[in-house]
Amino acid sequence: MPAKPRATVNSKRAPKAATTSIVRWIASKRDGQVLPDEAIEAIVHGASRNQVPDYQLAALLMAIVWRGLSPKELSTWLRSMIDSGDRLSLDAVPGKKIDKHSTGGVGDNLSLCLAPLVAACGVGVPMLAGRALGHTGGTLDKLESIPGFRVDLSAKQYVRALSRAGWVIAGQTPSIAPADRVLYALRDATATVESIPLIASSILSKKIAGGADGLVMDVKMGDGAFLRHDEPTRELARTLVRLGRKNGLPTVALLTDMDQVLGVEIGNASEVREAIQILRGEGPPDTQALTVRLAAEMLLMAGVARSIADGTARALSAIRSGDGLDRFRLGVQAQGGNPRVVDDFGLLPLARKTWVLRATRSGWMHTIAARPLGIAATLLGAGRLQKSDRVRHGVGITLHVAPGARVENKMPLCTVYHDDARRFVEARPLVQQAFAISSKQPPERVLVREVIRS
Amino acid sequence: MPAKPRATVNSKRAPKAATTSIVRWIASKRDGQVLPDEAIEAIVHGASRNQVPDYQLAALLMAIVWRGLSPKELSTWLRSMIDSGDRLSLDAVPGKKIDKHSTGGVGDNLSLCLAPLVAACGVGVPMLAGRALGHTGGTLDKLESIPGFRVDLSAKQYVRALSRAGWVIAGQTPSIAPADRVLYALRDATATVESIPLIASSILSKKIAGGADGLVMDVKMGDGAFLRHDEPTRELARTLVRLGRKNGLPTVALLTDMDQVLGVEIGNASEVREAIQILRGEGPPDTQALTVRLAAEMLLMAGVARSIADGTARALSAIRSGDGLDRFRLGVQAQGGNPRVVDDFGLLPLARKTWVLRATRSGWMHTIAARPLGIAATLLGAGRLQKSDRVRHGVGITLHVAPGARVENKMPLCTVYHDDARRFVEARPLVQQAFAISSKQPPERVLVREVIRS
Repeated sequence: MPAKPRATVNSKRAPKAATTSIVRWIASKRDGQVLPDEAIEAIVHGASRNQVPDYQLAALLMAIVWRGLSPKELSTWLRSMIDSGDRLSLDAVPGKKIDKHSTGGVGDNLSLCLAPLVAACGVGVPMLAGRALGHTGGTLDKLESIPGFRVDLSAKQYVRALSRAGWVIAGQTPSIAPADRVLYALRDATATVESIPLIASSILSKKIAGGADGLVMDVKMGDGAFLRHDEPTRELARTLVRLGRKNGLPTVALLTDMDQVLGVEIGNASEVREAIQILRGEGPPDTQALTVRLAAEMLLMAGVARSIADGTARALSAIRSGDGLDRFRLGVQAQGGNPRVVDDFGLLPLARKTWVLRATRSGWMHTIAARPLGIAATLLGAGRLQKSDRVRHGVGITLHVAPGARVENKMPLCTVYHDDARRFVEARPLVQQAFAISSKQPPERVLVREVIRS
Repeated sequence: MPAKPRATVNSKRAPKAATTSIVRWIASKRDGQVLPDEAIEAIVHGASRNQVPDYQLAALLMAIVWRGLSPKELSTWLRSMIDSGDRLSLDAVPGKKIDKHSTGGVGDNLSLCLAPLVAACGVGVPMLAGRALGHTGGTLDKLESIPGFRVDLSAKQYVRALSRAGWVIAGQTPSIAPADRVLYALRDATATVESIPLIASSILSKKIAGGADGLVMDVKMGDGAFLRHDEPTRELARTLVRLGRKNGLPTVALLTDMDQVLGVEIGNASEVREAIQILRGEGPPDTQALTVRLAAEMLLMAGVARSIADGTARALSAIRSGDGLDRFRLGVQAQGGNPRVVDDFGLLPLARKTWVLRATRSGWMHTIAARPLGIAATLLGAGRLQKSDRVRHGVGITLHVAPGARVENKMPLCTVYHDDARRFVEARPLVQQAFAISSKQPPERVLVREVIRS
């Protein structure tokens, strides 16, 4: 007796013959079975060519959220995503090239200072970055606050910028992992983003096709992170490392704190300003420490540093010497931006209306919660509520205290920069609720909670 | 801190604002939460008006297969399906009207004899029936083998036929539960059919909108049934009874055997012939027994019979008196069919090519498996492989032995009627594997395995 008669014999509502096998595969995944390679290849390639109906992809994606993918299925899924488009060749650029990717944070402008800093230490940094997503900021949006800066580079322009400055940060070109673009848009509209294999394959498909020799992942952990719970976050980090290595991209993952905001700036232009300050050695200690730590990992991975301690020393030295800042200038220029922003913050946009939040009691700054501040910044216009929204590069929130600091009553806690009273009114309660003052000094913040190397 | 910031703050890929809340609801169901009434109403009504994208519905349907619906959610879902269209009013037809519905079987032509039989006992039978689905036959397809018989009746024609003959069997009009049509087509193409709440609400939405006073469900159980396992089948029966009663449609469910074929005919015209034979008192004992039992349930439910025993006596008497057969004639005429088929089977189509399967050993007929024979009949053309396929009303399989009977070597087991050698070659191995002869007499077949009244 045949095992799957409903797939053999179609009902009166059957879709056209080509999609019949897709129904069978959806049913397999729904029932917790492992999909054969040819199924995954047909689905992923079909998705990138718009040959599989959206509704069938959506049902399959939800079944994957439910049932997961086995390691073998996930490798096939990832390879199919990569093979759906082109791979960038960075062979024309000499030396090792190491990419860094963050799963998304609030006040997380590390890429902006990290890329030139690592380049200054002799390792190329090619980054295909993203835009603001949900309550988290977007590296491309931040860079676009620099007058003239272009993120839509062709493959040729991308390689040329990398050659000139040692680093480049641009948007994904249409030919890189086109299946991911289709699947990601669909996942976002169908509540199927939160799946570890789907997240891991989405990130790595772009990173592997991007042509780097290694990847350092900054996996954000805590309430302000994309996955709010620790165990799935740890599982995502493990999956990224295992899957990357298995598919030819050596990967290390750092699990870093995102319960609280990173640095003192949340916005776009303001985060560029903060990145420049870090490269000057004047940035907030937490952001500087994490930047140096990630740089050390990248230098170690490239074989330029012998150890994390050695990598740390090299990164700190590139800050002290001003080489990192020079590389920043060079890269901005290579992508059409005005390099004078480094010396004249007046060239960066800044919203003109301000509002200051003050402490209502004395005590210790217990928590500066990342998530509500991220949402508040998005509501102000630092991110997008709708795809078509224009980002307001000058709005943002600047913190005046750090987590764990002593706070006196009436002391300013943060300044909100905005340009629209209605948006401000929506954002204000979120800003207010983000700051928690306690009578006891909280334990010191641990930025790097865990490192996963294999 | 807000509980669901990803829904509040949309990503750059966000769909248009109207569908934002749908994403949040899909996420809720994905996470196993209960959907509020307004969510279910918006989704079901949106589906029927094509205002919710198919891909969002597909993801939600898979999440429902995964997480289920609570009794309260299911009632709201059902009510929304009913309210998406019109309710038929049968008030113009005097007396009680009882509907009967089968979850689909092989050789299951009970509706064809049951409707006129119950009508002959003074209870109206309004049935909105379906077409062949998967490996199971369709009542409408069977009736259309009668020359001139029309199943596409308007609401007015439907009520008029019911008034004239006491029974009517027609297709669902477009205004009855339009949300179900959209959702059903999508479920079929996305492997989301197999969900007890979705099956139960699909059936009951049409039954409640159809205006009957009560419903007898024939829930098929066993390998040839739609749900192949006993426990989900029992759960479906319980859900139908509970949900029907809660929503104003008194419902009783009989769990009946569908491991094996019902009666001796599998096809369309041949099943009409068999139904007429049952009404003449000449049909196969199993089909006749189940017809009479279901009729008794319907008469009891209508208050016309005092007990199952009384209902059985009334049904048997309507067979003996010929009243059932007269009602069949009347109904065929009321729907434009040629009533002379009752006396002249030559008016029914019959495929001209035949092939006889013979026993390869002596013994007892252990099993005549419903599922492979159902698939074989579909392959021959009694059902559809593609939506656009034309049903071949004259093809089919006629059994020459009953389960449990003594079989001698070389004895004919069945005759296949076909009109296409290629189709026959595909169907033959399924026919051959359906018959299992054993050396021991099997236990007697129990047709009604369980009755669920509340």
